[in-house]
Amino acid sequence: MSVVGIVATIKVQAGKEAEFEKVFSDLRAKVRANEAGNLQYDFFKMKDEPTYIVMEQYASEQAMAEHGQSEHFKAAGPALGAVLAGRPTLQIVSKVE
Amino acid sequence: MSVVGIVATIKVQAGKEAEFEKVFSDLRAKVRANEAGNLQYDFFKMKDEPTYIVMEQYASEQAMAEHGQSEHFKAAGPALGAVLAGRPTLQIVSKVE
Repeated sequence: MSVVGIVATIKVQAGKEAEFEKVFSDLRAKVRANEAGNLQYDFFKMKDEPTYIVMEQYASEQAMAEHGQSEHFKAAGPALGAVLAGRPTLQIVSKVE
Repeated sequence: MSVVGIVATIKVQAGKEAEFEKVFSDLRAKVRANEAGNLQYDFFKMKDEPTYIVMEQYASEQAMAEHGQSEHFKAAGPALGAVLAGRPTLQIVSKVE
């Protein structure tokens, strides 16, 4: 069972970056504290635009599914929805060990 | 000085995946062993195509520059060039801590 990687690209409404970063930092803390199968959940900002990249790793496809179904992830939905500029795009990949 | 992230997308010639993975695994071992400023150098394969994603993190822009100038990175150039299907694309981003 190989480690699953995700690169998520998240576009945020201009001017809502600080609000997004606060909500996502809070989500990140909960993911790292509550999800044993999560191996990485780091996020990064692009230079000249309100777009963020999330680097994620999960111990298995099951762990990735549990992330998506977790209470803390669902609870962050409305606050994230209020600041995003469209649906995030995900690249789901398998780690080469 | 924030941590620099890179998401590199590397297209490999069909049928050359195993060769690429061997060369890149070797490079990864050298990066991790020799570059104090490198914090992450993981690579992943896309599901249905000979394309790889590399998640990289560097302690600083200086560390990222040192990576690109390192002997082991330059030495891997020809072997990688022989199996790639075009220039890699890089997204360079700043980590949100």
